[in-house]
Amino acid sequence: MNKNRTAFFISDRTGLTAETLGRSLLSQFDGSDIKRVTLPYLDSADKARDAVALINATAHADGRRPLLFSTLILPEVREIIALSDALILDLFEMFIAPLEAELGTPSSHAIGRSHGVGASYAARMDAVNYALSHDDGGITRELPRADIVLIGVSRCGKTPTSLYLALQFGIYAANYPLVPEDFAAEALPAALQPLRGKLHGLTIRPERLQQIRAERAPDSRYASLENCRHEVRQAEIMMQHAGISYLDVTTMSVEEIATTILHQTGLKR
Amino acid sequence: MNKNRTAFFISDRTGLTAETLGRSLLSQFDGSDIKRVTLPYLDSADKARDAVALINATAHADGRRPLLFSTLILPEVREIIALSDALILDLFEMFIAPLEAELGTPSSHAIGRSHGVGASYAARMDAVNYALSHDDGGITRELPRADIVLIGVSRCGKTPTSLYLALQFGIYAANYPLVPEDFAAEALPAALQPLRGKLHGLTIRPERLQQIRAERAPDSRYASLENCRHEVRQAEIMMQHAGISYLDVTTMSVEEIATTILHQTGLKR
Repeated sequence: MNKNRTAFFISDRTGLTAETLGRSLLSQFDGSDIKRVTLPYLDSADKARDAVALINATAHADGRRPLLFSTLILPEVREIIALSDALILDLFEMFIAPLEAELGTPSSHAIGRSHGVGASYAARMDAVNYALSHDDGGITRELPRADIVLIGVSRCGKTPTSLYLALQFGIYAANYPLVPEDFAAEALPAALQPLRGKLHGLTIRPERLQQIRAERAPDSRYASLENCRHEVRQAEIMMQHAGISYLDVTTMSVEEIATTILHQTGLKR
Repeated sequence: MNKNRTAFFISDRTGLTAETLGRSLLSQFDGSDIKRVTLPYLDSADKARDAVALINATAHADGRRPLLFSTLILPEVREIIALSDALILDLFEMFIAPLEAELGTPSSHAIGRSHGVGASYAARMDAVNYALSHDDGGITRELPRADIVLIGVSRCGKTPTSLYLALQFGIYAANYPLVPEDFAAEALPAALQPLRGKLHGLTIRPERLQQIRAERAPDSRYASLENCRHEVRQAEIMMQHAGISYLDVTTMSVEEIATTILHQTGLKR
């Protein structure tokens, strides 16, 4: 029914907030197959007029008015966009007035920099470097500096989760693979022994692990279902023996894995 | 004035949308030093009651009612949270009704999964693996598969930008360092020659580069201001000669660098 409907995410800066907002709202209308276009950096009247031309042409082509998720701040840009043939869902219009009343202070009406550079930004970049150099069991002597050490079998999602924790939250996340040689020893790898309080296990259904591994190494023993079953079972037994809780990430995104682990640990995000 | 004020970001799932929304809005009230607490995964009446207890205790301790940025969907949780002593800024309450009217369909009122797993998620994870294996000039034979190849001097921000492009947008981003040996040759490195249409330069002010390098290698020639000046100048001359545009990222975050490059290239995000 909404096949010929377009959603625009528009902003005078990166457009990331408008996209996040719009995506969350549209996820409540599951069946609707709505096209999505982001128009960022609309920071002048000329760019606003170009945007209105595009929005109106899209409305005409679709035969339906577009949805417009806006985080625009600049008054001269907002005025022009308000004339477009769209349903405008305006984040700042809805929320700024009650916030001004509550805080007893006017908002700056200046372009926001919620994705800008500051002290917390430097910490995030440092955390990214840490995650990269402590990926896959690299440089173990600096492991005690980690906030979190993710463990689990190869290709269960440790690396993207570590990078996301660093980029999004500035968390120092290392990761360390559990490999067949460890299972033979029937104990946590020696490098992990002193870090028990920071260890968080990931596990995954063997059928899904097989799919992921087969994309990289088709027809290998490494990717075979039999081997995946064996490794996952051994890793779970090892984590159980060591008293380390683990999360089944088979149907979870990195965002969900990362926020669940932070939630469980109580680390500040 | 708002030193004793707390903002809560609350959600029945990851809390990422509530955080993004709340941060954008609070960036409009720059001087206000507001404490921030995320309460994710509030998916039961019990958890909602615990949250209300915490919110009310905070209101009492602060002597001011907290701000509550909410993306809650579950009706039984929303009802309990509505009783808390806070200013509730409710994303779904504000926007779902106009969207239902416009789309002519009720919303699902089911917990949203805008950060879930799907076809685009698999592509994002594949892009992360690509960015990792094509960081810092690694595996050049697969460079033609890249959507974007970032070039610039060592430590100017190529790696975190590549990872962000992959994680957030599923863009295949490689990066390739411009090093003193390349400057001597006065031409683009051979591996980059066939990729001109995909090359995007980053540059940075030498004073900032010196700071960044000195954190890793203090008192080295590599981090000296003289050497940073030389490298940056040579890299800019090389990019100018090759007709490759470049971005001064000195005061930009990875989010800003990534979205600016996507905007300039017209790549779909």
